Parts: sequence; structure tokens; C-alpha cells
Amino acid sequence: MVTVAVDAMGGDKGPDAVVQGAALLSREDVDIHVRLVGDAAVVHEALSKVRYDPRRVSVVSADGFVAPTDDPRCVRDRPQCSVMRAAELVKTGEVDAMVSCGNTGGLILAASTHLRRIPGVRRAALAAVYPTEQKHGPKGDPFALILDVGATTQTDAEALVGFAAMGSAYSAIVSEVRAPRVALLSNGSEPHKGTPAIIEAHQRLLGGPLNFVGNVEGLEIPRGTVDVIVTEGFMGNVVLKMLEGVGEVMRDVAKKASSRRIEWRLGLSMLGGGLRELKRLTDWKVYGGAPVLGLEGVVIKAHGRSEARAIRNAVKVAAKTVRGGLVERIQDSVSALGLEEDASDRAS
Amino acid sequence: MVTVAVDAMGGDKGPDAVVQGAALLSREDVDIHVRLVGDAAVVHEALSKVRYDPRRVSVVSADGFVAPTDDPRCVRDRPQCSVMRAAELVKTGEVDAMVSCGNTGGLILAASTHLRRIPGVRRAALAAVYPTEQKHGPKGDPFALILDVGATTQTDAEALVGFAAMGSAYSAIVSEVRAPRVALLSNGSEPHKGTPAIIEAHQRLLGGPLNFVGNVEGLEIPRGTVDVIVTEGFMGNVVLKMLEGVGEVMRDVAKKASSRRIEWRLGLSMLGGGLRELKRLTDWKVYGGAPVLGLEGVVIKAHGRSEARAIRNAVKVAAKTVRGGLVERIQDSVSALGLEEDASDRAS
Repeated sequence: MVTVAVDAMGGDKGPDAVVQGAALLSREDVDIHVRLVGDAAVVHEALSKVRYDPRRVSVVSADGFVAPTDDPRCVRDRPQCSVMRAAELVKTGEVDAMVSCGNTGGLILAASTHLRRIPGVRRAALAAVYPTEQKHGPKGDPFALILDVGATTQTDAEALVGFAAMGSAYSAIVSEVRAPRVALLSNGSEPHKGTPAIIEAHQRLLGGPLNFVGNVEGLEIPRGTVDVIVTEGFMGNVVLKMLEGVGEVMRDVAKKASSRRIEWRLGLSMLGGGLRELKRLTDWKVYGGAPVLGLEGVVIKAHGRSEARAIRNAVKVAAKTVRGGLVERIQDSVSALGLEEDASDRAS
Repeated sequence: MVTVAVDAMGGDKGPDAVVQGAALLSREDVDIHVRLVGDAAVVHEALSKVRYDPRRVSVVSADGFVAPTDDPRCVRDRPQCSVMRAAELVKTGEVDAMVSCGNTGGLILAASTHLRRIPGVRRAALAAVYPTEQKHGPKGDPFALILDVGATTQTDAEALVGFAAMGSAYSAIVSEVRAPRVALLSNGSEPHKGTPAIIEAHQRLLGGPLNFVGNVEGLEIPRGTVDVIVTEGFMGNVVLKMLEGVGEVMRDVAKKASSRRIEWRLGLSMLGGGLRELKRLTDWKVYGGAPVLGLEGVVIKAHGRSEARAIRNAVKVAAKTVRGGLVERIQDSVSALGLEEDASDRAS
């Protein structure tokens, strides 16, 4: 049995969606126990409205929460809030993993407060799964991984090499790719292209233990020619938001077209399955959640707008990640790369 | 009459496409003279195959050219090559502007070799026009401008402020927007979000003479909520390539869908004009070319894959830019912003 703490508060849709997701999962034949962390009265009230298997759902009381619009640093003044309590449960080993659809910065800070960085990891990263044209792994997952997308802004070569190791480990578990193809995002495929940090990281990854395939350009992001794209958080954030923006614009355009003329509407409806592929590429609502990588614990961020099904998926991904031994895999990968522990840095 | 030097060599489609573009334009009632720069025998041969008005087309002999795959630095060893000769014609005032669809790096180096930087401009930039959902300017141009997209990699705040001034000047001329909305691309709209260079540039642009609207996130790129997006060349390159990649993937998906089932093909054909909007957003082949901004002359990069019509458009944009007084506008904008000339830096 894998036990997952789920932050029941703080998502855009409120505790009901989160509780419904946990209830949904509890009725499936999976070996996962969900501990809903939040205001006990509110969570019990939400539970009273849904059908769930009580052997697989329990409640952990917390005091307060971080709203999507709150300054993430407020977690420091709210040690008993839901996301801090969930991270504490991971630290003490009471749960194997945590999931939150709340404030992203708050989640990263809460996790970093309670969980130590894996030795050799210079910076933790937030990774995101996004849809691609090409398929990945033996099950043909139509997704690739990009990191960092927001835990850092600018980083050095050492941090980028760490991101490569962490992304590779996560992709191997989630997409079941034996040796994920890892690339650095740059402004040219040649080894000398990019920022000084990227050029140095390229040198360090070449000939190393990872399946490093070199630099890729922006063109390769939607194509998905590699399994893991490594970049600084500033760039990753812009890329990810832009993918969302492109999806929104495409949907707007299709909507306007279908409302304007009857034959366009008819045309769209005839496309049926043909459009499904386009829809998948533009309207992905985070299938499984975005992992915070590099900490001594499994931490998954679900999208703020997550409905019950997205919460259920994020918990399943968390459990799969625990079973795949993510932390150990990252540890192994980081030592194979010869990344040195810097005690002073780690203590900061 | 505006005279434009056009590099006849070096494009992916060879001299024929370039010469056809010049011939096409010469038959229109425009006050533009094109000087085709290249191997005289080759250019005359190409001219012999097309119909053109000899009052508006002439040939300037050059020795050699830079191929798309050549190292851009080779221009230093080829002072008589077509792109270098064209830049020289701008310097000596024999022409008012230049256009090239050849090697981008070669063009930027050739232009920087012959043309001085405008006083106060720290770094020249390559800007790109890309399609957006929202319209811009009194004629409702469905495009916005993003810079730098490749003349620099990382830059400081001073350079970013210069990009803002140059982008604003160009947008005002080309889209005829009176006070173009200018924004910095960042990982959040708050003034403290971004790299140190962006945070400082934000402070310096606030309350200044430009219509600076703050930071925008990746979401706003395809939406086109602003007229000019300012970013470092490394980021701009990735963003631009990614927009191209998204377009290619969308077309692939639509193609596959239409070939797979007859009703999907029928559906696509019924969409007609509704799809045209989507096509415009994903299949833009550079309408007018990308300006190199910050030098004492008008320099336009046309897409390497430009056909005759794209070349014609690029020459028209060059002429419009000359008539709009780009260099003077940038000079005014840069002094209004109080950007200081750094003699030692400029000499480098």
C-alpha cells in the first residue's frame, strides 16, 4: 500500500473537487491510501457528499491554507497550514508522497522547508509533462517532460546537469522509457550554441551515463523528438505558458469559426476523431501533475484548475513514482554523474 | 525614389526566386528601385527569364556569397561577397536599404561590419514579426513584433531598454501604431519577476517616454495583447522556433486527419474560411522580413525559404521603413530614454 497526502485546500475549485478525486480513486482496485489534509470540518463535510471506500481515505487536520493568489512566502508564517502539514507527513515518513493543486510557489517552499535536497542536487526543479506529436516509451505516451519550469530563474551548469539526471529518472519511471533521450534547450544544435551555462552543461553531459542527445531548438518542443528537455526555470516558465497560450488561441479560433457559419460548424463536427488529436495537443489539463524533483520525497503539483479526475490521476502518478523508487534513482544518477555534494550550499 | 540593395545569392531557393521577386515589384506602380547584388552573369541570366521594368531594376556585381550552411564569420574573408557588397552600398549611401534572404548570421555580421551602431544603442537586435490572435494598429495588422530573436544571446538591462526603443520605433512605422504597447517577456507580470536584467529594465522603462505596459508572460505571445515584446536573443530564438514548430505540428496533424478518413477530409474542406484563420496563425512564411535594428541603415532579413512574393514584400517593407525614417526615430527614442553613448563599448 502506498500512502499519499493530498492537500485538500487551496485549489481553484475548492476542497470538493479534491475530495471527489480521492473518493473516485478509493472506489478503484488500487493499492493506494489517500490522506486528505485540510480543515477537518470542511473535508468531512465534502466527504459526506460523495461515495468513497473508507479503507482508502482518511483525514488529517490542518490549520489554514495558502490561497492561489497568496504570496508563497506566507507558508513560513503558517506552519500548520495544509500544504506545510502534508510536507511534514512526507518528512516523518507517515506518507510516501504528497500531492497539491494549490499555490505552486507555496508547495515548492513547503516541500523545501521540510524535505532535504538529495545529496549532489544543487537545485530542486519543477518539471512539467506536456503533449507532443511524437510518442514516447513502450506504451507510446504522447507526452514529453520539460524542466525546470519555475522552481528556479537562472541557474548554472551544475544545476542543469542535475536537472538532466532528475528528468531522466522521472521519465524512466513514468513513461517507462529505458534510457530517456535527454537534451538541452538552446538556440542551435551545435555544442557551442547557448548561454555559458548551457555550453558547459553540454560538455559535462557528453559521454556521460545519461542518454544525452545534445542541444535541441524550439522547433523540437512540440514535435517531441526527445523525452526530456532541460532548461533554466525562466525559459521553462515562458515555454510552458506559451504552449498553454497557443492552445487557448487555437480553441478560440475554432470556436469563432464554428459560431460564424453553419457549414463551418458542420465541418468541425464531421472532423470528430480527427480533431481529437488537435484537441489533445492544445487542451491538456495536466494529465498527471508536475513533479518537484530533487528533494528527499515524492512531491507532485496538480494543476490549480484540476477537477476530480485530474486529482485522481495526480495521486496515481505519485504512487507510481514512489513504487519506481524516484529518490533512489535520482541519487544513483547524480552520483554516476559525479555531482559533488557542497555542504555549505546545501545548508543554505 | 527609394533604392534597395537586394542580396541575390545565398537564399535556399537560389537567385531565381530573388530575381523574380524584384521583377514582380518592378512591374508595380511603386517608387522603388532594386539593385540586385550578386554574380553578374548569374543575375543577368535569371533576369533574361523574367519580365521586368528595367527602370526599376539594376545589377551590382559581387564576388562570391555566403551559403545558408556556411559559418557566418566567413564574411570577414569575403569582403566582396554579395551580402558584404550590399551592406557597403548602404554605408556609402548608394542605396537606402538592404534586403537579404541568405545566412542570418552572415547578414548581421556584414551589416555590423559596414554600418555603425546608432549612438546610445548598446546592442543591435534582430526583430521578427509573427502572427497573433489580436489585431494591431489602425489597419488591424494581425501581427506583433518580438526582439531580439538572434543577434544576441544574453544581454544587460541597458540593451533591453534599447530593444524596447527600437522595437517601438519599427512597430510605429510598419504597423502605423501611434504609441506601440511595449512589454518585457518574463515569468510573471509583477515588476520583481524575471532575471536581474529584466527587473532592472522594467524599472528603467516605467514612467519613461515609451508606452511601456510592464511584463507579459508566455501566454500573451500568441494572443498578441501587446505590439512589441522585448526579450534576450536566446529566449527570442527559442520562442520563434517554437512558434514555427507548433505551426508545423498543427499542419501535420490536420494532414494526417484528412488522409485517414473521407468524412474528416470533407469536414476540413467544409471549414474553408474558418480554417484560413488557423492557417494564418500557423503557416506564416514571413510576410515582410525581419529587421536588423540599431544600425545606421535599414537592413531587412527575408526568410531563407522566401519565394518571389516574400522577396517583393521584404523590399516593400524596407522602402516603407526608409520612408518612415527608422534610424532617426530610433535616435530620438534612444535619446529620450537617456541611453548614454559608451565610446569604448561602441568601438568594440
